[in-house]
Amino acid sequence: MADSVETEETSQLIASDKVEGTAVYNRQGERLGTISNFMVNKYTGEAEYAVLQFGGLFGLGSDHYPLPWEILSYDTDKGGYVVNIDKDQLADAPRYRHDDTPEYNDEYGKTVYGYYGMSYPLL
Amino acid sequence: MADSVETEETSQLIASDKVEGTAVYNRQGERLGTISNFMVNKYTGEAEYAVLQFGGLFGLGSDHYPLPWEILSYDTDKGGYVVNIDKDQLADAPRYRHDDTPEYNDEYGKTVYGYYGMSYPLL
Repeated sequence: MADSVETEETSQLIASDKVEGTAVYNRQGERLGTISNFMVNKYTGEAEYAVLQFGGLFGLGSDHYPLPWEILSYDTDKGGYVVNIDKDQLADAPRYRHDDTPEYNDEYGKTVYGYYGMSYPLL
Repeated sequence: MADSVETEETSQLIASDKVEGTAVYNRQGERLGTISNFMVNKYTGEAEYAVLQFGGLFGLGSDHYPLPWEILSYDTDKGGYVVNIDKDQLADAPRYRHDDTPEYNDEYGKTVYGYYGMSYPLL
């Protein structure tokens, strides 16, 4: 892939449009889907969620799974993110259809972060 | 504009792909360009730069101006970001062509942040 994540990646920083579309794998090496986009706090500038997308045809009807940003780590060998989630765990995970995006408020944050064993908001 | 920034914006959070393409104005109400993308710290998840794009035809040959994320504020009336920069100030501002993206290291950070009167890295 010529236009890989590395193209606009430095040691510390990555371009927002390179995060979007990047593949996500679990620890078993299974491809879970891709990052559709991520949610940034307007005031602090901090990324709080990465949204994993999979299912559907060509993005139509696909489900979106918000993940705490902190659980993603980038694997240069795989050219994608790795998360410690198995497929079974995703079966019950918080999700939404693109045209039914929830309000990302504190309550939703507690639901999502809580599902992955983390507290929200992060202190 | 049906698919405006507000569509995927909550009170605190904004979707990464809604930041991209959003217009940027100065305090005088002049349209400076649009956000092409933004640079995120992979480890902390913090947005450090928003990249302002303008000039060229259909994005071809346009210049990219990295701006400290902190100097942008969102104006719901304008449907875009407002920065306290006049057009003359951009004449000498750090910039690059898309196919000549610099390495976003600490030295570059000091140049960019310094140009806008800020220190880098932020503590």
